[in-house]
Amino acid sequence: MKKLLIIGGVAGGASAAARARRLNEEAEIIMFERGEFVSFANCGLPYHISGEIPERSALILQTPASFKSRFNVDVRVQQEVIAIDKVAKTLLVKNLITGEQYSESYDALLLSPGAAPITPPIPGLNTPLTFSLRNIPDMDRILASVKQSRPRHVTVVGGGFIGLEMMESFHALNIEVTLLELSNQVMAPVDIEMANMLHSEILAKGIDLRLNTGLASVEQTSSGLSLFLSNGESLDTELLICAIGVKPETRLAVDAGLVIGELGGIIVDEMMRTSDADIYAVGDAVEEFDLLTGEKCLVPLAGPANRQGRIAANNIFGGSASYKKTQGTAICRVFDLAIASTGLSEKRLAKTEIPFDKVYLHGASHASYFPGAHPISLKLLFNTDNGKILGAQALGRDGVDKRIDVLAVAIRAGLTVYDLQEMELTYAPPYGSAKDLLNQAGFVATNSLKGETCLCHSADIDARDDSQVLLDVRNPGELLKAGSIAGAINIPLDQLRERLNELPRDREVLVFCQVGLRGHVAYRMLVNHGFKVRNLSGGFKTYQAVTA
Amino acid sequence: MKKLLIIGGVAGGASAAARARRLNEEAEIIMFERGEFVSFANCGLPYHISGEIPERSALILQTPASFKSRFNVDVRVQQEVIAIDKVAKTLLVKNLITGEQYSESYDALLLSPGAAPITPPIPGLNTPLTFSLRNIPDMDRILASVKQSRPRHVTVVGGGFIGLEMMESFHALNIEVTLLELSNQVMAPVDIEMANMLHSEILAKGIDLRLNTGLASVEQTSSGLSLFLSNGESLDTELLICAIGVKPETRLAVDAGLVIGELGGIIVDEMMRTSDADIYAVGDAVEEFDLLTGEKCLVPLAGPANRQGRIAANNIFGGSASYKKTQGTAICRVFDLAIASTGLSEKRLAKTEIPFDKVYLHGASHASYFPGAHPISLKLLFNTDNGKILGAQALGRDGVDKRIDVLAVAIRAGLTVYDLQEMELTYAPPYGSAKDLLNQAGFVATNSLKGETCLCHSADIDARDDSQVLLDVRNPGELLKAGSIAGAINIPLDQLRERLNELPRDREVLVFCQVGLRGHVAYRMLVNHGFKVRNLSGGFKTYQAVTA
Repeated sequence: MKKLLIIGGVAGGASAAARARRLNEEAEIIMFERGEFVSFANCGLPYHISGEIPERSALILQTPASFKSRFNVDVRVQQEVIAIDKVAKTLLVKNLITGEQYSESYDALLLSPGAAPITPPIPGLNTPLTFSLRNIPDMDRILASVKQSRPRHVTVVGGGFIGLEMMESFHALNIEVTLLELSNQVMAPVDIEMANMLHSEILAKGIDLRLNTGLASVEQTSSGLSLFLSNGESLDTELLICAIGVKPETRLAVDAGLVIGELGGIIVDEMMRTSDADIYAVGDAVEEFDLLTGEKCLVPLAGPANRQGRIAANNIFGGSASYKKTQGTAICRVFDLAIASTGLSEKRLAKTEIPFDKVYLHGASHASYFPGAHPISLKLLFNTDNGKILGAQALGRDGVDKRIDVLAVAIRAGLTVYDLQEMELTYAPPYGSAKDLLNQAGFVATNSLKGETCLCHSADIDARDDSQVLLDVRNPGELLKAGSIAGAINIPLDQLRERLNELPRDREVLVFCQVGLRGHVAYRMLVNHGFKVRNLSGGFKTYQAVTA
Repeated sequence: MKKLLIIGGVAGGASAAARARRLNEEAEIIMFERGEFVSFANCGLPYHISGEIPERSALILQTPASFKSRFNVDVRVQQEVIAIDKVAKTLLVKNLITGEQYSESYDALLLSPGAAPITPPIPGLNTPLTFSLRNIPDMDRILASVKQSRPRHVTVVGGGFIGLEMMESFHALNIEVTLLELSNQVMAPVDIEMANMLHSEILAKGIDLRLNTGLASVEQTSSGLSLFLSNGESLDTELLICAIGVKPETRLAVDAGLVIGELGGIIVDEMMRTSDADIYAVGDAVEEFDLLTGEKCLVPLAGPANRQGRIAANNIFGGSASYKKTQGTAICRVFDLAIASTGLSEKRLAKTEIPFDKVYLHGASHASYFPGAHPISLKLLFNTDNGKILGAQALGRDGVDKRIDVLAVAIRAGLTVYDLQEMELTYAPPYGSAKDLLNQAGFVATNSLKGETCLCHSADIDARDDSQVLLDVRNPGELLKAGSIAGAINIPLDQLRERLNELPRDREVLVFCQVGLRGHVAYRMLVNHGFKVRNLSGGFKTYQAVTA
């Protein structure tokens, strides 16, 4: 390997360039970036708009000069590669400042072009007040517009990571925000009931959240923009952020005849090599394989891009590193909450042949008697044949990242819910519980698999008939405060043993409490007294989230 | 099973009682506790002394009444079991209030007696101003003494969990604290260099920390206590906390002829059964097996006790649950820092046949460009034959629990440092980094195992000879601020490629930077230019900790 050319100078490309130089001191390494910046913190852009990251310079992690001095990499910013000749092994490059074009040869080529914001074909969308956010110039433009026009109201289209972060950023700037989301939930990787808990938080912060609502057309007015929505309503706003998703940047790859997959990403093998043996590709532009289903997927996240860049560099310089599929671990901060997930969601599992069940837990981030404990809601999905953990989602103020990280490793290692019972996690009152929420999730799922509990879910409650009776074992004070489910008998758990005669023995008892724990104690008591019973997993708190 | 008796009503006993009732509604369950309280939060006691947990009542998780109403368990507090007759299957019980003695029969017996503070044979130790902390009455006595005598100075003997927490609690009450520790470090589960970083924090808070110093004798004086130390010095203090460790409470078990192990704990099989088929034992009183070495150990921690109680109850009621050995995961908050560990330490590994190496990393708790990132120092120990993770220790303000939990699961699952490279952990700027510290630890250890880096450690630096040269690649400003190692040549990394001729080609270069990352870049550059090189793992920061 004499000469490595890299197209794209952010996460995957920058990682590959640094790794390549560490592996080989002799090779010529040139990195082309059509933008002005390389190796910037794209995940930090929304937080500079909000002011939470005060210094713009903090977002620029490396410069062409620093790459040159440290890694002897020739970084050519504002130079766009306009064609790949894979037979001649040359690139045609255009200098965007001078307009000059030139050719550059390679021995190996790495594509790290990323993914571009999707701009839907909405009439009138393209206005001077319409923005998307991909890079530092985009951020600068949004900040300039905010500074100049001082909008009182902004509309964000799309409830994914960037949409949610932009919503939060504008809210932090005391600007009213409408969030439009075409589907019935924000944060697509999680299931609807987990998203519903997030919707509550978003609404509580005063955001005008409109689900099941798309943008139909846009008209510029004297005072800003008029938005016409898919539901026939209209809305006046002063700034529009389009964040409905991204698509792989594949024009160069397509033109060069590289194989593109059904999802629109560049096809690579596990060594990150494209259909051309001398061309590698990494990051948001490539199709990956899902760890659990084996299906193709697109994962436009920073972590995989960085690791793939490193792997591609290894292989270009004679190594044999392979990318081990993806499980799509993700997290997003939304106001005071974190929402995170790893592995498969229920809606994705429902489309597979995998036999699965789910449990819900609502517990404290650390020992509840120690100050600062906050509730965490956890959904755990597992294989009912072998107990393997398939996916997890969590929401809360604190400790969500920790629980999902632990489960991400557990999924990666092929662990089961049985193993989860035994996990020895750090415990001291400020950090966890002697029986951590994750141990408890293992207990509940194991009980279910071993037949020591029989769980039901909200859909079962709503579909109940006259052969069943609904039992609420919470205390009357809790019912007054939080409400209950219509038709439920209320017998507080601590009175249940004495009041069994109030329950019909010829009907199945569907029992619930607030989060599922007392329901389980009641379940066991009733089963041991000969009743037929099921316990509502996650209790009334989950029921409320499901039926919100 | 008709009748289950439980001795000890805190973590293991209380967990077993609740689980037993959930499994069986008919059995008679009686729990004996010689103290006044059952199921109290013993890990919270120091934090009520400091006032951080304001309400004493928050520490009492269950009462005899709540156990009765919810679980139909007959809780007998202030009743001490004074003998077990394992042939007759009866207990002799003494009511500590009335003095009355009576016999109670059992079908199964569970011992959860816990461990008692060790009171060393120090002349004069037992004074009205000497305390240990095991339970709520101990806590009440300490609080009463503090309130009454308003000490200006307290001495804590022992730098383990309780000693450190008590040190912090008294400091929070604006009382001067001397901490005496017989060994050369506090927090025995971690290695000396990690403990040294904690010593710095302790000293910075104004604690009079005296390592390698034991308590030889105590004399009561008119104004308090005079302490005579092992080093010949003496010390006046007004209150003395003895926290040098705990030993299993085995008197009942010994008297009953149950088998006791070499470490002084009750011997149980993996079903938590003692040498008597009808007697089970759990918690701080039993000997466990280490997950990685298979050796016997004592693990007086709340998590294992709770899980063992559950397992014993399962087995008593016909199940076949087994306790899966222990890896000793632990964490302690010490002022603004958390220190945590899992698996084996270097000092324990040094006593085994396991071939191992170590890497040190110092990185940020989350993306360094996002506000609130704090440094984490991580030590990772791994098997050099197969890459398996053997142990980890970490120290920092934030995110320490998360990293150690992830590594605890990785160890439990038998994962390797290679796997660590691939871990897909949650990443958004407030929570982590695109290449998390754990991924980086995987990179460094993998590089080492694959020969892509050759690491050295502080001992190698100190043992260097004329055939070697020491190279500091930090910037001169860093050296001015933090110092360097005597005799090191300083060539900043970004100038190194141009100044290679300043380095001797006939000597091995021992290179270092502040934390090890730039040292690695320098290492690769130098190796690729034909030098013989090693890079100091963890850089100057680790060197300082080792040589503190």
